[in-house]
Amino acid sequence: MPEPIGFIGLGHMGLPIARNLLAKGFPLRVYNRSPDKAKTLVQEGATLVKSSEEVATPGAIVITMLADDAAVESVATDQLAKALGPGGVHISMSTVSPETNAKLDERFARHGVAVVAAPVFGRPEAAAAGKLWVCTSGPQAPKQRVKPVLDVVGQGVFDFGAKVGSANVVKLAGNFMLTAATEAMAEASALAEKNGIPRESLLKMLTQTLFNCPVYTGYAARVINADFENVGFALPLALKDMLLARQTATSTHAPMPYLDILCDRYISAIAKGRSGLDASALAQGAAEDAGLKWGV
Amino acid sequence: MPEPIGFIGLGHMGLPIARNLLAKGFPLRVYNRSPDKAKTLVQEGATLVKSSEEVATPGAIVITMLADDAAVESVATDQLAKALGPGGVHISMSTVSPETNAKLDERFARHGVAVVAAPVFGRPEAAAAGKLWVCTSGPQAPKQRVKPVLDVVGQGVFDFGAKVGSANVVKLAGNFMLTAATEAMAEASALAEKNGIPRESLLKMLTQTLFNCPVYTGYAARVINADFENVGFALPLALKDMLLARQTATSTHAPMPYLDILCDRYISAIAKGRSGLDASALAQGAAEDAGLKWGV
Repeated sequence: MPEPIGFIGLGHMGLPIARNLLAKGFPLRVYNRSPDKAKTLVQEGATLVKSSEEVATPGAIVITMLADDAAVESVATDQLAKALGPGGVHISMSTVSPETNAKLDERFARHGVAVVAAPVFGRPEAAAAGKLWVCTSGPQAPKQRVKPVLDVVGQGVFDFGAKVGSANVVKLAGNFMLTAATEAMAEASALAEKNGIPRESLLKMLTQTLFNCPVYTGYAARVINADFENVGFALPLALKDMLLARQTATSTHAPMPYLDILCDRYISAIAKGRSGLDASALAQGAAEDAGLKWGV
Repeated sequence: MPEPIGFIGLGHMGLPIARNLLAKGFPLRVYNRSPDKAKTLVQEGATLVKSSEEVATPGAIVITMLADDAAVESVATDQLAKALGPGGVHISMSTVSPETNAKLDERFARHGVAVVAAPVFGRPEAAAAGKLWVCTSGPQAPKQRVKPVLDVVGQGVFDFGAKVGSANVVKLAGNFMLTAATEAMAEASALAEKNGIPRESLLKMLTQTLFNCPVYTGYAARVINADFENVGFALPLALKDMLLARQTATSTHAPMPYLDILCDRYISAIAKGRSGLDASALAQGAAEDAGLKWGV
């Protein structure tokens, strides 16, 4: 019998993940700041509660999947930890800084609750299909216990050891690499178009040959079609991730010049009024610097 | 009956390509600055000649595959063009600037010879296996004619239109993207290791999931193992390609900040005495800046 789960955060990623857990028979108590988002889940059998701590069943599992560190800190309170109590596990799936998860770990430990970091790679479509990639870190026994839950969420789980923040470093490093790939495609495409070669010709060739992997094919399609308004990964969240990576890189002394350029690209995108677009709109920066115009 | 081919340049890439053509029955006349390199080819049936123009059979095909623009210019002379004469085709496979191929095109046109640019993607192992990816540009009829030759060289041919230099722009843009991928992996790996996560754990996860394509798997293995001494793509040639991309980007007005960082990484690698290493030794830059040491 699947154990009860409390789920906090029904955004682009959280909602499809929660739905998959419900479909697999996990009894679900859900909380979201905007309760409207829970409507379909409640019809499918979830219980909607009015405060974050009410999602907790004593000794059970709570998952948080929220937009940023502040949102996680605002719900992952001592009240929630107390409600979960001894034997409880908090699966922290949001993309937050390793420091935030380390802080939560301390707070929850005081109430006998273990924290497992489990950030995920993949867009909302992958979440809906249960095809995310999950990175974990934290203490061994709770990781074993939540494995059946994570197996519903993703197509694979990769573990990064006992230190709770490690999976978050990996997530930030991975998001940096995704975004760096988009910038590289954007610069290469600008070079091609300034030389009379459509970016479609360049990127189709490269993604059919040396770069035939999901990241490149997916972002190449967005760059080719200037498909930036169909938001899978909101641009301000991408900036947030780059700034978290920047903060971790600074505090652990790892200069990352490619990351610096990405931070500036996103800051510039926001300056140009692109907060409502997908993160891939970053590609417009290289185009505009070259006097080209892609998309809105 | 395969038509005779003159082949100039028997380096890391040229030699395996020439060997494949010979094996497929193309009569081969070869020239190399160091004639020793031709030894095995001659045993396999090739004719070694003493000057570049002697490789030409009137009206036939000549292939050049050399390290840089100066080397190509030094052999692709008026003498060679005259020896090829009307109906001849020069397949220019080296990674050179689009301007160099445009200049060769003018020179060879005066002798009735067409120039087809056909730079390739892939390392020497891929060349030996006939698994390169070939990019072409130039006039239509000669491209059709040399298709059977290029089909021996590679597993696929992508065409970029009539302008002779276009395939070279694509090649430079692609090499930029390959190298940018290595830099991104290096920075992400440095961040991981400064946070106690082995770069092997990070890169294995990413190349098994979002980045499961030849470029990333290949370069990740080199970064993980600090395998920089086994030279597939010599570091000074990578710098040469970045500088050619830089030159084309400047002359056509495409700012490329990622490219600028790569130029400096290679310049620094040479300053540190790494001219004899593989291009992937670029990865040591991000590591060293973070106070880490990978490899020699």
